[in-house]
Amino acid sequence: MKIVTSELPFKTTGQTDIINITREVQEEVLQSGVQDGSIMLFISGSTAALTTIEFESGVVNDLKKAIDRIAPRDIPYEHDRRWGDGNGFSHVRASLLGPSLSIPLMEGRLFLGTWQQVVLLDFDNRPRSRKVTVQIMGK
Amino acid sequence: MKIVTSELPFKTTGQTDIINITREVQEEVLQSGVQDGSIMLFISGSTAALTTIEFESGVVNDLKKAIDRIAPRDIPYEHDRRWGDGNGFSHVRASLLGPSLSIPLMEGRLFLGTWQQVVLLDFDNRPRSRKVTVQIMGK
Amino acid sequence: MKIVTSELPFKTTGQTDIINITREVQEEVLQSGVQDGSIMLFISGSTAALTTIEFESGVVNDLKKAIDRIAPRDIPYEHDRRWGDGNGFSHVRASLLGPSLSIPLMEGRLFLGTWQQVVLLDFDNRPRSRKVTVQIMGK
Repeated sequence: MKIVTSELPFKTTGQTDIINITREVQEEVLQSGVQDGSIMLFISGSTAALTTIEFESGVVNDLKKAIDRIAPRDIPYEHDRRWGDGNGFSHVRASLLGPSLSIPLMEGRLFLGTWQQVVLLDFDNRPRSRKVTVQIMGK
Repeated sequence: MKIVTSELPFKTTGQTDIINITREVQEEVLQSGVQDGSIMLFISGSTAALTTIEFESGVVNDLKKAIDRIAPRDIPYEHDRRWGDGNGFSHVRASLLGPSLSIPLMEGRLFLGTWQQVVLLDFDNRPRSRKVTVQIMGK
Repeated sequence: MKIVTSELPFKTTGQTDIINITREVQEEVLQSGVQDGSIMLFISGSTAALTTIEFESGVVNDLKKAIDRIAPRDIPYEHDRRWGDGNGFSHVRASLLGPSLSIPLMEGRLFLGTWQQVVLLDFDNRPRSRKVTVQIMGK
Protein backbone atom coordinates (compact mmCIF):
# COMPACT_ATOMS: atom_id res chain seq x y z
CA MET A 1 0.00 0.00 0.00
CA LYS A 2 1.44 3.36 -0.91
CA ILE A 3 0.47 7.03 -0.81
CA VAL A 4 1.63 9.42 -3.52
CA THR A 5 0.79 13.11 -3.08
CA SER A 6 1.40 15.82 -5.67
CA GLU A 7 0.10 19.17 -6.79
CA LEU A 8 -1.16 20.13 -10.22
CA PRO A 9 -1.00 23.81 -11.20
CA PHE A 10 -3.72 25.44 -13.31
CA LYS A 11 -4.23 28.97 -14.59
CA THR A 12 -7.86 30.07 -14.58
CA THR A 13 -9.75 33.15 -15.79
CA GLY A 14 -11.99 33.14 -12.70
CA GLN A 15 -15.64 34.24 -13.28
CA THR A 16 -16.89 30.64 -12.88
CA ASP A 17 -14.22 29.28 -15.18
CA ILE A 18 -14.78 25.51 -15.52
CA ILE A 19 -11.64 23.61 -16.59
CA ASN A 20 -11.34 19.97 -17.60
CA ILE A 21 -8.44 18.54 -15.55
CA THR A 22 -9.03 14.84 -16.31
CA ARG A 23 -5.97 14.31 -18.52
CA GLU A 24 -3.56 15.85 -15.99
CA VAL A 25 -5.07 13.83 -13.12
CA GLN A 26 -4.92 10.58 -15.11
CA GLU A 27 -1.24 11.30 -15.89
CA GLU A 28 -0.48 11.50 -12.16
CA VAL A 29 -2.14 8.13 -11.66
CA LEU A 30 -0.02 6.56 -14.40
CA GLN A 31 3.17 8.01 -12.93
CA SER A 32 2.31 6.73 -9.44
CA GLY A 33 2.20 3.13 -10.64
CA VAL A 34 -0.87 2.47 -8.47
CA GLN A 35 -3.24 -0.03 -10.10
CA ASP A 36 -5.93 -0.63 -7.50
CA GLY A 37 -6.97 2.05 -5.03
CA SER A 38 -8.39 5.51 -5.15
CA ILE A 39 -7.55 9.11 -5.78
CA MET A 40 -8.56 12.01 -3.61
CA LEU A 41 -8.60 15.49 -5.14
CA PHE A 42 -8.69 18.68 -3.11
CA ILE A 43 -8.64 22.34 -4.09
CA SER A 44 -7.19 24.61 -1.44
CA GLY A 45 -8.67 28.11 -1.38
CA SER A 46 -12.16 29.29 -0.52
CA THR A 47 -13.41 30.44 -3.94
CA ALA A 48 -13.00 27.26 -6.02
CA ALA A 49 -14.48 23.75 -6.12
CA LEU A 50 -14.28 20.35 -7.82
CA THR A 51 -16.92 18.11 -9.40
CA THR A 52 -17.50 15.90 -12.44
CA ILE A 53 -19.45 16.71 -15.61
CA GLU A 54 -19.86 15.71 -19.25
CA PHE A 55 -17.42 18.31 -20.52
CA GLU A 56 -19.16 19.79 -23.56
CA SER A 57 -19.76 23.53 -23.77
CA GLY A 58 -23.56 23.27 -23.70
CA VAL A 59 -23.69 21.48 -20.32
CA VAL A 60 -20.87 23.62 -18.96
CA ASN A 61 -22.88 26.78 -19.75
CA ASP A 62 -26.02 25.20 -18.29
CA LEU A 63 -24.16 24.50 -15.04
CA LYS A 64 -22.89 28.10 -14.93
CA LYS A 65 -26.47 29.37 -15.29
CA ALA A 66 -27.70 27.09 -12.49
CA ILE A 67 -24.93 28.37 -10.21
CA ASP A 68 -25.92 31.94 -11.13
CA ARG A 69 -29.47 31.20 -9.99
CA ILE A 70 -28.32 29.68 -6.68
CA ALA A 71 -25.84 32.45 -5.77
CA PRO A 72 -26.40 35.40 -8.12
CA ARG A 73 -23.61 37.88 -8.65
CA ASP A 74 -25.81 40.98 -8.61
CA ILE A 75 -27.36 40.78 -5.15
CA PRO A 76 -25.82 42.32 -1.99
CA TYR A 77 -23.31 40.20 -0.04
CA GLU A 78 -22.24 41.04 3.52
CA HIS A 79 -18.72 39.88 2.69
CA ASP A 80 -18.44 42.65 0.10
CA ARG A 81 -19.65 45.34 2.49
CA ARG A 82 -17.03 44.27 5.05
CA TRP A 83 -14.03 43.52 2.87
CA GLY A 84 -14.75 45.29 -0.41
CA ASP A 85 -13.21 42.62 -2.60
CA GLY A 86 -16.48 41.99 -4.44
CA ASN A 87 -16.27 38.20 -4.41
CA GLY A 88 -18.88 37.29 -1.80
CA PHE A 89 -20.75 35.30 -4.45
CA SER A 90 -17.55 33.35 -5.20
CA HIS A 91 -17.17 32.21 -1.59
CA VAL A 92 -20.81 31.11 -1.34
CA ARG A 93 -20.60 29.12 -4.59
CA ALA A 94 -17.41 27.37 -3.50
CA SER A 95 -18.87 26.34 -0.12
CA LEU A 96 -21.99 24.93 -1.76
CA LEU A 97 -20.09 22.86 -4.35
CA GLY A 98 -17.31 21.67 -2.03
CA PRO A 99 -13.51 21.30 -2.29
CA SER A 100 -12.98 17.52 -2.34
CA LEU A 101 -13.71 14.62 -4.69
CA SER A 102 -12.76 10.94 -4.59
CA ILE A 103 -12.57 8.55 -7.55
CA PRO A 104 -11.76 4.84 -7.57
CA LEU A 105 -8.86 3.51 -9.66
CA MET A 106 -9.02 0.23 -11.53
CA GLU A 107 -6.07 -1.17 -13.43
CA GLY A 108 -4.35 2.19 -13.18
CA ARG A 109 -7.21 4.21 -14.62
CA LEU A 110 -9.73 6.66 -13.19
CA PHE A 111 -12.98 4.74 -13.04
CA LEU A 112 -15.14 7.47 -14.61
CA GLY A 113 -18.17 7.05 -16.85
CA THR A 114 -17.62 7.31 -20.61
CA TRP A 115 -18.59 10.99 -20.78
CA GLN A 116 -17.68 11.93 -17.22
CA GLN A 117 -14.78 14.34 -16.73
CA VAL A 118 -13.15 15.91 -13.66
CA VAL A 119 -13.46 19.70 -13.51
CA LEU A 120 -12.02 22.54 -11.49
CA LEU A 121 -14.49 25.43 -11.01
CA ASP A 122 -12.95 28.81 -10.25
CA PHE A 123 -15.60 31.18 -8.89
CA ASP A 124 -13.30 34.08 -8.03
CA ASN A 125 -13.82 37.45 -9.73
CA ARG A 126 -10.34 37.58 -11.26
CA PRO A 127 -7.79 35.24 -12.90
CA ARG A 128 -6.05 32.92 -10.45
CA SER A 129 -3.20 30.43 -10.28
CA ARG A 130 -4.61 27.32 -8.62
CA LYS A 131 -3.12 24.13 -7.28
CA VAL A 132 -5.12 20.92 -7.10
CA THR A 133 -3.75 18.42 -4.59
CA VAL A 134 -3.80 14.86 -5.94
CA GLN A 135 -3.44 12.04 -3.46
CA ILE A 136 -3.27 8.49 -4.77
CA MET A 137 -3.62 5.64 -2.28
CA GLY A 138 -3.42 1.98 -3.22
CA LYS A 139 -1.33 -0.88 -4.55
CA MET B 1 -4.44 -2.82 5.67
CA LYS B 2 -6.47 -4.00 2.71
CA ILE B 3 -8.47 -2.56 -0.17
CA VAL B 4 -11.56 -4.33 -1.47
CA THR B 5 -13.26 -2.88 -4.55
CA SER B 6 -16.55 -4.06 -5.99
CA GLU B 7 -19.49 -2.83 -8.01
CA LEU B 8 -23.13 -2.89 -7.03
CA PRO B 9 -25.73 -2.90 -9.83
CA PHE B 10 -29.03 -1.02 -9.53
CA LYS B 11 -31.98 -0.55 -11.88
CA THR B 12 -33.50 2.91 -11.71
CA THR B 13 -36.52 4.59 -13.28
CA GLY B 14 -34.60 7.85 -13.87
CA GLN B 15 -36.62 11.09 -13.45
CA THR B 16 -34.84 11.88 -10.15
CA ASP B 17 -35.34 8.37 -8.85
CA ILE B 18 -33.91 8.23 -5.31
CA ILE B 19 -32.99 4.71 -4.19
CA ASN B 20 -31.94 3.53 -0.74
CA ILE B 21 -28.75 1.46 -1.24
CA THR B 22 -27.71 1.22 2.44
CA ARG B 23 -28.42 -2.50 2.85
CA GLU B 24 -26.43 -3.51 -0.25
CA VAL B 25 -23.50 -1.30 0.77
CA GLN B 26 -23.49 -2.68 4.34
CA GLU B 27 -23.49 -6.22 2.92
CA GLU B 28 -20.29 -5.45 0.95
CA VAL B 29 -18.67 -4.20 4.16
CA LEU B 30 -19.57 -7.42 5.99
CA GLN B 31 -18.21 -9.55 3.15
CA SER B 32 -14.92 -7.60 3.08
CA GLY B 33 -14.17 -8.47 6.70
CA VAL B 34 -12.90 -4.92 7.30
CA GLN B 35 -13.65 -3.75 10.86
CA ASP B 36 -11.94 -0.36 11.11
CA GLY B 37 -11.51 1.92 8.13
CA SER B 38 -13.72 3.65 5.63
CA ILE B 39 -15.80 3.12 2.55
CA MET B 40 -15.70 5.30 -0.54
CA LEU B 41 -18.69 5.22 -2.87
CA PHE B 42 -18.63 6.52 -6.43
CA ILE B 43 -21.23 6.61 -9.17
CA SER B 44 -19.77 6.62 -12.65
CA GLY B 45 -21.85 8.48 -15.23
CA SER B 46 -22.69 12.15 -15.54
CA THR B 47 -26.42 12.12 -14.73
CA ALA B 48 -26.45 10.52 -11.27
CA ALA B 49 -25.20 11.35 -7.77
CA LEU B 50 -24.87 10.03 -4.21
CA THR B 51 -25.81 11.52 -0.83
CA THR B 52 -27.37 10.56 2.51
CA ILE B 53 -30.92 11.24 3.72
CA GLU B 54 -33.54 10.06 6.18
CA PHE B 55 -35.21 7.72 3.74
CA GLU B 56 -38.91 8.35 4.28
CA SER B 57 -41.11 9.31 1.32
CA GLY B 58 -41.94 12.78 2.67
CA VAL B 59 -38.32 13.95 2.86
CA VAL B 60 -37.49 12.20 -0.40
CA ASN B 61 -40.24 14.16 -2.17
CA ASP B 62 -39.11 17.37 -0.46
CA LEU B 63 -35.58 16.82 -1.77
CA LYS B 64 -36.93 16.22 -5.29
CA LYS B 65 -38.82 19.51 -5.15
CA ALA B 66 -35.73 21.40 -3.98
CA ILE B 67 -33.71 19.93 -6.86
CA ASP B 68 -36.52 20.96 -9.24
CA ARG B 69 -36.18 24.54 -7.99
CA ILE B 70 -32.38 24.55 -8.42
CA ALA B 71 -32.32 23.04 -11.92
CA PRO B 72 -35.88 23.03 -13.32
CA ARG B 73 -36.79 20.62 -16.07
CA ASP B 74 -38.90 23.08 -18.07
CA ILE B 75 -36.34 25.81 -18.86
CA PRO B 76 -34.09 25.84 -21.95
CA TYR B 77 -30.73 24.01 -21.71
CA GLU B 78 -27.92 24.52 -24.22
CA HIS B 79 -27.07 20.83 -23.97
CA ASP B 80 -30.51 19.96 -25.34
CA ARG B 81 -30.20 22.36 -28.27
CA ARG B 82 -26.85 20.79 -29.24
CA TRP B 83 -27.46 17.13 -28.58
CA GLY B 84 -31.24 16.75 -28.55
CA ASP B 85 -31.32 14.14 -25.81
CA GLY B 86 -33.39 16.34 -23.51
CA ASN B 87 -31.43 15.64 -20.33
CA GLY B 88 -29.53 18.90 -19.84
CA PHE B 89 -31.24 19.32 -16.47
CA SER B 90 -30.03 15.82 -15.45
CA HIS B 91 -26.39 16.73 -16.09
CA VAL B 92 -26.63 19.98 -14.13
CA ARG B 93 -28.27 18.26 -11.15
CA ALA B 94 -25.62 15.53 -11.07
CA SER B 95 -22.72 18.02 -11.13
CA LEU B 96 -24.24 20.04 -8.29
CA LEU B 97 -24.84 17.02 -6.03
CA GLY B 98 -21.57 15.22 -6.80
CA PRO B 99 -20.57 11.61 -7.54
CA SER B 100 -18.59 10.57 -4.44
CA LEU B 101 -19.29 9.94 -0.76
CA SER B 102 -17.13 8.59 2.07
CA ILE B 103 -18.35 6.96 5.28
CA PRO B 104 -16.30 5.68 8.24
CA LEU B 105 -16.57 2.05 9.35
CA MET B 106 -16.53 1.03 12.98
CA GLU B 107 -16.61 -2.61 14.08
CA GLY B 108 -17.59 -3.61 10.57
CA ARG B 109 -20.57 -1.27 10.28
CA LEU B 110 -21.29 1.93 8.37
CA PHE B 111 -21.11 4.68 10.96
CA LEU B 112 -24.34 6.41 9.91
CA GLY B 113 -26.82 8.25 12.13
CA THR B 114 -29.90 6.34 13.29
CA TRP B 115 -32.11 7.66 10.49
CA GLN B 116 -29.38 8.35 7.94
CA GLN B 117 -29.39 6.22 4.79
CA VAL B 118 -27.18 6.14 1.68
CA VAL B 119 -29.02 6.99 -1.54
CA LEU B 120 -28.37 6.87 -5.26
CA LEU B 121 -30.07 9.69 -7.18
CA ASP B 122 -30.68 9.05 -10.87
CA PHE B 123 -31.47 12.32 -12.67
CA ASP B 124 -31.57 10.95 -16.22
CA ASN B 125 -34.78 11.23 -18.25
CA ARG B 126 -35.15 7.48 -18.79
CA PRO B 127 -34.65 4.20 -16.88
CA ARG B 128 -31.00 3.25 -16.42
CA SER B 129 -28.85 0.37 -15.23
CA ARG B 130 -26.32 1.87 -12.81
CA LYS B 131 -23.23 0.58 -11.08
CA VAL B 132 -22.03 2.05 -7.80
CA THR B 133 -18.35 1.41 -7.09
CA VAL B 134 -17.73 0.44 -3.47
CA GLN B 135 -14.18 0.69 -2.18
CA ILE B 136 -13.47 -0.48 1.35
CA MET B 137 -10.11 0.42 2.87
CA GLY B 138 -9.01 -0.64 6.34
CA LYS B 139 -8.13 -3.46 8.71
CA MET C 1 0.41 3.05 7.10
CA LYS C 2 -1.99 3.58 9.95
CA ILE C 3 -5.65 4.50 10.52
CA VAL C 4 -6.68 6.58 13.53
CA THR C 5 -10.41 7.13 14.07
CA SER C 6 -11.92 9.41 16.68
CA GLU C 7 -14.99 11.50 17.36
CA LEU C 8 -15.16 15.19 18.12
CA PRO C 9 -18.19 16.47 20.08
CA PHE C 10 -19.77 19.85 19.34
CA LYS C 11 -22.74 21.69 20.80
CA THR C 12 -24.74 23.64 18.23
CA THR C 13 -27.70 26.02 18.37
CA GLY C 14 -29.24 24.49 15.22
CA GLN C 15 -31.07 26.96 12.88
CA THR C 16 -28.24 26.72 10.30
CA ASP C 17 -25.57 27.18 12.92
CA ILE C 18 -22.19 27.23 11.14
CA ILE C 19 -19.27 26.33 13.44
CA ASN C 20 -15.55 26.54 12.71
CA ILE C 21 -14.08 23.16 13.70
CA THR C 22 -10.63 23.58 12.09
CA ARG C 23 -8.65 23.88 15.32
CA GLU C 24 -10.16 20.74 16.85
CA VAL C 25 -9.61 18.75 13.65
CA GLN C 26 -5.99 19.93 13.35
CA GLU C 27 -5.41 18.89 16.97
CA GLU C 28 -6.53 15.33 16.15
CA VAL C 29 -4.06 15.25 13.26
CA LEU C 30 -1.19 16.34 15.54
CA GLN C 31 -2.11 13.70 18.12
CA SER C 32 -2.22 10.95 15.49
CA GLY C 33 1.39 11.55 14.50
CA VAL C 34 0.49 11.11 10.81
CA GLN C 35 2.62 13.31 8.57
CA ASP C 36 1.64 12.33 5.03
CA GLY C 37 -1.84 11.10 4.20
CA SER C 38 -5.36 12.39 4.40
CA ILE C 39 -8.21 13.02 6.75
CA MET C 40 -11.81 12.05 6.14
CA LEU C 41 -14.51 13.87 8.09
CA PHE C 42 -18.07 12.62 8.42
CA ILE C 43 -21.10 13.94 10.27
CA SER C 44 -23.58 11.27 11.25
CA GLY C 45 -27.19 12.42 11.34
CA SER C 46 -29.49 13.59 8.57
CA THR C 47 -29.84 17.30 9.41
CA ALA C 48 -26.19 18.43 9.37
CA ALA C 49 -23.36 18.76 6.84
CA LEU C 50 -19.69 19.64 6.39
CA THR C 51 -17.89 22.01 4.01
CA THR C 52 -15.09 24.59 3.93
CA ILE C 53 -15.41 28.39 3.94
CA GLU C 54 -13.50 31.56 4.73
CA PHE C 55 -14.81 31.82 8.26
CA GLU C 56 -15.70 35.50 8.63
CA SER C 57 -19.21 36.49 9.69
CA GLY C 58 -20.05 38.25 6.40
CA VAL C 59 -19.48 35.18 4.22
CA VAL C 60 -21.07 32.92 6.81
CA ASN C 61 -24.26 35.02 6.70
CA ASP C 62 -24.13 35.10 2.90
CA LEU C 63 -23.97 31.30 2.83
CA LYS C 64 -26.94 31.08 5.22
CA LYS C 65 -28.98 33.33 2.90
CA ALA C 66 -28.09 31.22 -0.15
CA ILE C 67 -29.19 28.07 1.68
CA ASP C 68 -32.44 29.85 2.64
CA ARG C 69 -33.09 30.52 -1.05
CA ILE C 70 -32.40 26.90 -2.05
CA ALA C 71 -34.52 25.28 0.68
CA PRO C 72 -36.64 27.98 2.34
CA ARG C 73 -37.98 27.42 5.81
CA ASP C 74 -41.42 28.90 5.18
CA ILE C 75 -42.73 26.66 2.40
CA PRO C 76 -44.68 23.40 2.95
CA TYR C 77 -42.65 20.18 3.39
CA GLU C 78 -44.19 16.72 3.13
CA HIS C 79 -41.93 15.54 5.93
CA ASP C 80 -43.58 18.01 8.30
CA ARG C 81 -47.11 16.93 7.34
CA ARG C 82 -46.21 13.30 8.04
CA TRP C 83 -44.02 13.59 11.12
CA GLY C 84 -44.86 16.99 12.59
CA ASP C 85 -41.33 17.75 13.72
CA GLY C 86 -41.07 20.84 11.53
CA ASN C 87 -37.57 20.19 10.23
CA GLY C 88 -38.23 19.10 6.62
CA PHE C 89 -36.14 22.03 5.41
CA SER C 90 -33.24 20.83 7.63
CA HIS C 91 -33.21 17.39 6.00
CA VAL C 92 -33.26 18.82 2.48
CA ARG C 93 -30.41 21.22 3.22
CA ALA C 94 -28.26 18.46 4.72
CA SER C 95 -28.76 16.14 1.73
CA LEU C 96 -27.82 18.89 -0.72
CA LEU C 97 -24.63 19.89 1.14
CA GLY C 98 -23.49 16.37 2.00
CA PRO C 99 -22.04 14.67 5.11
CA SER C 100 -18.42 13.92 4.11
CA LEU C 101 -15.27 15.87 3.35
CA SER C 102 -11.67 14.81 2.67
CA ILE C 103 -8.54 16.94 3.13
CA PRO C 104 -4.92 16.04 2.37
CA LEU C 105 -2.29 16.21 5.12
CA MET C 106 1.22 17.43 4.47
CA GLU C 107 3.90 17.41 7.17
CA GLY C 108 1.23 16.82 9.77
CA ARG C 109 -0.96 19.75 8.80
CA LEU C 110 -4.32 20.11 7.07
CA PHE C 111 -3.50 21.32 3.58
CA LEU C 112 -6.10 24.11 3.50
CA GLY C 113 -5.87 27.48 1.76
CA THR C 114 -4.80 30.46 3.87
CA TRP C 115 -8.38 31.60 4.56
CA GLN C 116 -10.07 28.22 4.19
CA GLN C 117 -11.62 26.71 7.32
CA VAL C 118 -13.55 23.49 8.01
CA VAL C 119 -17.14 24.05 9.17
CA LEU C 120 -19.96 21.99 10.62
CA LEU C 121 -23.40 23.20 9.50
CA ASP C 122 -26.30 22.25 11.75
CA PHE C 123 -29.60 22.73 9.93
CA ASP C 124 -31.88 21.26 12.58
CA ASN C 125 -34.58 23.43 14.16
CA ARG C 126 -33.27 23.04 17.71
CA PRO C 127 -29.94 22.87 19.60
CA ARG C 128 -28.11 19.58 19.12
CA SER C 129 -25.10 17.69 20.43
CA ARG C 130 -23.16 16.53 17.38
CA LYS C 131 -20.24 14.19 16.83
CA VAL C 132 -17.92 14.57 13.85
CA THR C 133 -16.02 11.40 12.99
CA VAL C 134 -12.39 12.09 12.14
CA GLN C 135 -10.47 9.38 10.31
CA ILE C 136 -6.78 9.94 9.64
CA MET C 137 -5.04 7.58 7.21
CA GLY C 138 -1.36 7.77 6.35
CA LYS C 139 2.22 7.50 7.53
